[in-house]
Amino acid sequence: MSSNGTKTRRTEIVAAAERLFRDKGYLATTMRDIADEMGMQGGGSLYAHISGKEELLWHIASEAIDAFFAAVIPAIEQAGSNSPADKLQAAMLAHMGVICERLSAAAVYFDEWRHLSQPKRGQFLERRNQYERIFEALVLQGVQSSVFRQLDVRVTTLHLLGSMNAIRHWYRPDGRLSAQEVAARITDLLLEGIHTR
Amino acid sequence: MSSNGTKTRRTEIVAAAERLFRDKGYLATTMRDIADEMGMQGGGSLYAHISGKEELLWHIASEAIDAFFAAVIPAIEQAGSNSPADKLQAAMLAHMGVICERLSAAAVYFDEWRHLSQPKRGQFLERRNQYERIFEALVLQGVQSSVFRQLDVRVTTLHLLGSMNAIRHWYRPDGRLSAQEVAARITDLLLEGIHTR
Repeated sequence: MSSNGTKTRRTEIVAAAERLFRDKGYLATTMRDIADEMGMQGGGSLYAHISGKEELLWHIASEAIDAFFAAVIPAIEQAGSNSPADKLQAAMLAHMGVICERLSAAAVYFDEWRHLSQPKRGQFLERRNQYERIFEALVLQGVQSSVFRQLDVRVTTLHLLGSMNAIRHWYRPDGRLSAQEVAARITDLLLEGIHTR
Repeated sequence: MSSNGTKTRRTEIVAAAERLFRDKGYLATTMRDIADEMGMQGGGSLYAHISGKEELLWHIASEAIDAFFAAVIPAIEQAGSNSPADKLQAAMLAHMGVICERLSAAAVYFDEWRHLSQPKRGQFLERRNQYERIFEALVLQGVQSSVFRQLDVRVTTLHLLGSMNAIRHWYRPDGRLSAQEVAARITDLLLEGIHTR
């Protein structure tokens, strides 16, 4: 098999694992299930491409966190102004863009990472904390400059991330609203609230 | 065993299942795991108390939805005024109160219900939809009476529920904030947003 063919096969295995981890959960998915999902005979031949189930979980979780960083950092740099509000808005739109584009990976990222064992689990959490701190810094800047209300910065950050991440449970690519529309409405709701001003 | 002892044993089985379904997921949990968690020998003796794993999932999910209704309906009736804003606020505080009080059950309720098979799955969804409609009706009343902004009622409802439910991922009973404080801050953030007015 050419190195290109090997790469493609590996990509297919990751995609199959992503679907199964999302639908059944990581712990309930076996290598045999992944081989079946791909129409391969037995789980054994998978080991030519990957070392095991945990490598797949790590691959999916790492790619997802990479995708979040790759979308959000440039979005903040290219925000309409230097205001923390504009930067936060740009970061939120980019964050939800990744979730909507990669729904299965997002499901695995958010719900299955806790099954990683050490040291991978620690590495993953460190990187996720780095990512959260981007949002926390923007919230803090907004509070300090009184663009935002005098809020509990930690709770607000956890609230923003949790609320954005919750769209994975109901956003549908074939639904009434596009990914951009969902991201824009949720961003507006989170920034402006519900009450009439 | 007295009928009281039987009831206690069943309650213990449900509690053990709740912990395991939360930590490992429903599909990865076996009856043997539940027996082990309780220090019982083998999974067989569990069947004196319950028909199987799915009965436990149904029990946990039904009790959770019952708890949400039981907290939210009276909270709305006893709200400070007849305003949809006050009613929604009371409903939100009550909803998050249930999540914080019953964290394990909430985790199972939100993340594992999809493993129920028919007809239980349909019954569960019908009841969950009824519950969502309570919030949707309050959002609609608020929009119609211009207490709330001219919002997309469906997206706003999904957003409110998703955002409130997300606190299960980070609220800790032994943390810096009490359940009441977390619920109050998240309710304020959702109703008033982040921007300074």
